[in-house]
Amino acid sequence: MDFMMKAIGIIHTPLIDKSKAPIQSSRSDIIGTIEVFPQYMEGLEGIEDFSHIYLLYGFHRSEQEISLKVQPFLDDQYHGVFTTRYPCRPNPLGLSVVQLTGKQANVLCFKGADMLDGTPLLDIKPYIPEFDVFSVDKTGWYQHRKLP
Amino acid sequence: MDFMMKAIGIIHTPLIDKSKAPIQSSRSDIIGTIEVFPQYMEGLEGIEDFSHIYLLYGFHRSEQEISLKVQPFLDDQYHGVFTTRYPCRPNPLGLSVVQLTGKQANVLCFKGADMLDGTPLLDIKPYIPEFDVFSVDKTGWYQHRKLP
Repeated sequence: MDFMMKAIGIIHTPLIDKSKAPIQSSRSDIIGTIEVFPQYMEGLEGIEDFSHIYLLYGFHRSEQEISLKVQPFLDDQYHGVFTTRYPCRPNPLGLSVVQLTGKQANVLCFKGADMLDGTPLLDIKPYIPEFDVFSVDKTGWYQHRKLP
Repeated sequence: MDFMMKAIGIIHTPLIDKSKAPIQSSRSDIIGTIEVFPQYMEGLEGIEDFSHIYLLYGFHRSEQEISLKVQPFLDDQYHGVFTTRYPCRPNPLGLSVVQLTGKQANVLCFKGADMLDGTPLLDIKPYIPEFDVFSVDKTGWYQHRKLP
């Protein structure tokens, strides 16, 4: 079963060079803006009352061939791609939680950019601790990773 | 910019009837299995060492017409669709964090099913508290919702 996903907006960030992008939004203080296309603006009603949101987006600059074993940025070993956030993956889906800092019409301002400039936005969902915070006891290779 | 997303597996759950599905995985003890198609099995290497994973999937049974203002299951007011997890949305992308309880070859067992049986799987990502747990001060309409 295939799904056609369309960009509903564009994420603007100062990140142009892949090698300089932060590893994760939680490690980033970089500011960005989300330009939601005007035809979807009504769907943003009330979003300014949330402090954190999920951005789901397309990895538009994953030009490499897809491999099922990859070396994540924080380790020197290869791991199954589904145990990593590596951008080059069978479906080019990216996920970041960012802090929403403002809204003007169809443009959202946020902190925590870890995606490249021009990233096509696919969805926004609210981040709600009761739904999204889990008590975890195992984080696989990440617990024994090479880099901090 | 459009992206073609392909199913990389199928999520099997006992949930057939939309009206009986739990609101969120965090409120569910229901067990399910994920059948990852054999050609992607190598990408699962090491996943058994994670206790929680993100499932990204397609809402394959959102037959309604898309509306930008929706009434979420927990409230009696209409809100912008991007402030909700409502399944019928501009791109039919679903997101759940579930607890991984076992792995046998290309099949994963999990707890926390909130998606319907037969849901097409699009991606799996590791859930890592350092990346995924945020301190939140505003959760919009959810703070004042009608239902608990």
